[in-house]
Amino acid sequence: MPDFAEPLARLINEFKRLPGIGQKSAQRLAFHVLRVSREDAEHLAQSIVDVKDKLGLCTLCNNISDSDLCPFCRDSARDPKVVCVVEEPLGIIGIETTRQFEGRYHVLHGALSPLRGVGPESLRIKGLVERIGQGEIQEVIIATNPTVEGEATAVYLARLLKPLGVKVTRIGMGIPVGSDLEFSDEVTISKAMEGRREM
Amino acid sequence: MPDFAEPLARLINEFKRLPGIGQKSAQRLAFHVLRVSREDAEHLAQSIVDVKDKLGLCTLCNNISDSDLCPFCRDSARDPKVVCVVEEPLGIIGIETTRQFEGRYHVLHGALSPLRGVGPESLRIKGLVERIGQGEIQEVIIATNPTVEGEATAVYLARLLKPLGVKVTRIGMGIPVGSDLEFSDEVTISKAMEGRREM
Repeated sequence: MPDFAEPLARLINEFKRLPGIGQKSAQRLAFHVLRVSREDAEHLAQSIVDVKDKLGLCTLCNNISDSDLCPFCRDSARDPKVVCVVEEPLGIIGIETTRQFEGRYHVLHGALSPLRGVGPESLRIKGLVERIGQGEIQEVIIATNPTVEGEATAVYLARLLKPLGVKVTRIGMGIPVGSDLEFSDEVTISKAMEGRREM
Repeated sequence: MPDFAEPLARLINEFKRLPGIGQKSAQRLAFHVLRVSREDAEHLAQSIVDVKDKLGLCTLCNNISDSDLCPFCRDSARDPKVVCVVEEPLGIIGIETTRQFEGRYHVLHGALSPLRGVGPESLRIKGLVERIGQGEIQEVIIATNPTVEGEATAVYLARLLKPLGVKVTRIGMGIPVGSDLEFSDEVTISKAMEGRREM
């Protein structure tokens, strides 16, 4: 590794710790920071500290929030009878982009992964059971990722929640829209076959 | 755009202003910052401000430096007779990775681009002319990028510097090592043909 001045080397290392940022991207980002005004650099630095200081989790659904309840839990226009369970807050963003779901959310903050030591007690499942216990929820849509971990979590949740008298559904899996059978893997295709619907 | 809590939305926007970071990457980075410890977030923020406060330009070659002279200009083992001219400090890093160049550098901080209003007076050319005027430099290797702007800069510099009695050379252009003729564009191939060498 060639010589960078120390503060620059340190910033490059800090950027490299971010997800998806390798050596070259980190260098490009660091040199970009060098080029912008001190004011712009301060805004970026302040924003980074602010998200740690000013944000917490929604006390109901565990979404990221700057107040007790997140905007989705506060919004009385949203249907409290349907709850969509996602692994991470970013999952909510994905579903919101469709503008079709009008229920509430529940964020687990992870997925079951015995190999990495993530058991049910590490996920925020207890709050979900409590919410169901209050009697208003009729359907729980499990929108964990279609991965080994997400599937295991879905199966676990279905077994746990069905006895509580709610309908438990799983989001559909199959060929992504705009894609091609030719480029889809066998597991996805077999899920697409399983999930076929009459036309 | 779905609702993010304000500090989160602000951080996502700040990240989006960085080069090569789009909406999705910015979201992923911001959520990563949310997940790390406050201490780690502070380190990142502090590093960003530090590069603005602690770094300046080498008074000789304009490379990024935390002291008057950058490590390359300070290093008396490096050959002061050969100067390699690059557009940006990152160009130096690229050349240093080869471990084959043992001369000095000169950073222009840009390339000629009349369309974007970047004329010769916007580049750090004057210092280069002064360095040549001191009589020690024998060869100037122009390592600006093989783009329209970089080429225009190279041509401009060659015309300016040759009359000063130095040898002016341009880095070779051609098919990148490990690549394939099939996937190379016509301009690159024609440069490769022009730059052919006897075996």
